[in-house]
Amino acid sequence: MKPIDHAAASAEVRAVFDDIKATRKLADVNNFWKYLANEPRMLKHVWSSLKDMMGPGALDPLTKELIYVAVSITNNCEYCMASHGFAARQKGASEEMMSELLAIVGLANMTNRLANGYRVPVDEAFK
Amino acid sequence: MKPIDHAAASAEVRAVFDDIKATRKLADVNNFWKYLANEPRMLKHVWSSLKDMMGPGALDPLTKELIYVAVSITNNCEYCMASHGFAARQKGASEEMMSELLAIVGLANMTNRLANGYRVPVDEAFK
Amino acid sequence: MKPIDHAAASAEVRAVFDDIKATRKLADVNNFWKYLANEPRMLKHVWSSLKDMMGPGALDPLTKELIYVAVSITNNCEYCMASHGFAARQKGASEEMMSELLAIVGLANMTNRLANGYRVPVDEAFK
Amino acid sequence: MKPIDHAAASAEVRAVFDDIKATRKLADVNNFWKYLANEPRMLKHVWSSLKDMMGPGALDPLTKELIYVAVSITNNCEYCMASHGFAARQKGASEEMMSELLAIVGLANMTNRLANGYRVPVDEAFK
Amino acid sequence: MKPIDHAAASAEVRAVFDDIKATRKLADVNNFWKYLANEPRMLKHVWSSLKDMMGPGALDPLTKELIYVAVSITNNCEYCMASHGFAARQKGASEEMMSELLAIVGLANMTNRLANGYRVPVDEAFK
Amino acid sequence: MKPIDHAAASAEVRAVFDDIKATRKLADVNNFWKYLANEPRMLKHVWSSLKDMMGPGALDPLTKELIYVAVSITNNCEYCMASHGFAARQKGASEEMMSELLAIVGLANMTNRLANGYRVPVDEAFK
Repeated sequence: MKPIDHAAASAEVRAVFDDIKATRKLADVNNFWKYLANEPRMLKHVWSSLKDMMGPGALDPLTKELIYVAVSITNNCEYCMASHGFAARQKGASEEMMSELLAIVGLANMTNRLANGYRVPVDEAFK
Repeated sequence: MKPIDHAAASAEVRAVFDDIKATRKLADVNNFWKYLANEPRMLKHVWSSLKDMMGPGALDPLTKELIYVAVSITNNCEYCMASHGFAARQKGASEEMMSELLAIVGLANMTNRLANGYRVPVDEAFK
Repeated sequence: MKPIDHAAASAEVRAVFDDIKATRKLADVNNFWKYLANEPRMLKHVWSSLKDMMGPGALDPLTKELIYVAVSITNNCEYCMASHGFAARQKGASEEMMSELLAIVGLANMTNRLANGYRVPVDEAFK
Repeated sequence: MKPIDHAAASAEVRAVFDDIKATRKLADVNNFWKYLANEPRMLKHVWSSLKDMMGPGALDPLTKELIYVAVSITNNCEYCMASHGFAARQKGASEEMMSELLAIVGLANMTNRLANGYRVPVDEAFK
Repeated sequence: MKPIDHAAASAEVRAVFDDIKATRKLADVNNFWKYLANEPRMLKHVWSSLKDMMGPGALDPLTKELIYVAVSITNNCEYCMASHGFAARQKGASEEMMSELLAIVGLANMTNRLANGYRVPVDEAFK
Repeated sequence: MKPIDHAAASAEVRAVFDDIKATRKLADVNNFWKYLANEPRMLKHVWSSLKDMMGPGALDPLTKELIYVAVSITNNCEYCMASHGFAARQKGASEEMMSELLAIVGLANMTNRLANGYRVPVDEAFK
């Protein structure tokens, strides 16, 4: 499937693109949205969900990006590591923070398997 | 495999248990460590890594726990969700923060597949 | 490991290759089979299983390809997305169907984590 | 986290619950929605996305449920296997279809690793 | 879906069950095969593949079981950890070996994410 | 993030690099360690864990490498497949062994989903 540029987009897709650009103060939407535009309904849902949940809330914007990167590393999504790693740095993540994040993602992936492999029962205190 | 209690532990294992209890100000170590004690070398390495990387650093302690929970949900490790979810709340996570975290983990798992499925090329700006 | 071409293949491997070509009406087997030929026993088992289960049965051939693509996206297997995406289109999948499939794969990966993360108990009605 | 029943729900959550019940002709929403109601924004987004993408479109409703089940098995989401397996049967899936689906999910998970493990290059014909 | 016992099995399924029992010198097949019997074609393919590939070959039988356990822990398949852990012990695995295996599975899951997260390029020497 | 060469490394990092080179009798450390050096604490922990657990123990060195490769294939870590596949061959793995390993990894990934999908209960004999 091919990406859909602003010029080739339907009015419906263009409205989402314009909202992304206005919200994120960007000259153009990034590749992810141009591919997703092949399914305009999904484009709208994903953007609407991300705009809402990555916006103001209980967690600060940087923490949200770091969580996003952590999941993307675990799932080995190269595009998502690149785009959310970029966003995390724009929101203030230092290289030290990114390296520490990566360390913790590695450790969690290790202890996840150790806990599952030993079939460790959940402590009463955690219930 | 069976958990190894403090009373039944070797001097080597007991030393690690004591360091865990002192560092985390706990009366007893939780089940994870008691199972891991079946492999004393690994017990030492995992504790030493976690003590160091989850301790003071570039990211604050709560953010580290949230990252840990995010990975554990993605991998479906029930024990790790329970233990690190507990730790996150102890370090100040509100229910609103935990629900927002879960939402972001869900969204990241979705967009990871959308980006991989469309084989979206990484934007020049992110390189 | 290197792919094994028809010319270089043993009689045993060649017999499987010939059956693949005859069954699928192809001039040559695709790369997957040429690599798998490094383990002739496995070549035979995988082909025999796929020939049988992807052939006539309770589900129609297109639905089977779509299921195959859905799993391959979830696991991020680039080769499998390409080969089974191709097969799905040959069996009649439109671009609209492929985009809708991708949307559903994304949504399922999201709600899988939401259900696991909240540890939602299975409703009585579903048991 | 606890599930939120209709009686205890905010007007905002109740409106989503009512739409789910009306759309799916159910007396009550199932557990998934009651837990998700802990994050009302996400409840709205997930429901709005599922209502739209699982509704009329390029793929028939049964095929969509089968895809959902295939992903849920791959990710080992017990709740999702139960709920979407139930929905698939309600939409006409026979036991033969469910068993064939499971077979294909198993085969895809196998060949995904074989293709990745051999690092099979994508055939020109598939590009 | 319900398990299918020897008594209730078709002649086709029974023949596979009998071969499993004779090959593995068991009084009865274990639960996995009784469930898989819901799809007799797949029962035959899986048994035929496992009988062949887990039998005599380049790797010794114990190593094969350990590999099976390693994958099953990574994927969090409780049934498979139990059945192949049992088989590994029957083929001579000591508790020390099982604990060391678990340690290595944990470490590999960690370094897999570190290598992916840093996007480490493959060294020339490894190509 | 950029790799850190021996020349540019801190004394702390250099000490780890020197130990890796001495232990493994290498002229230079491979890329993995040069990237991991961005987080010197983690470099130390990962090396110390791997040196210990991949060294002499209950399992022979080749078996350990094979387990490492099996996990890396399951997780689709290209770097880890290459580096541990190389190490396995250096420790004596033949091409026949590597192909058999890959076959078993594929089969385990298949039966993991079949067991989870059928929700097969663990046999009493395995508990």
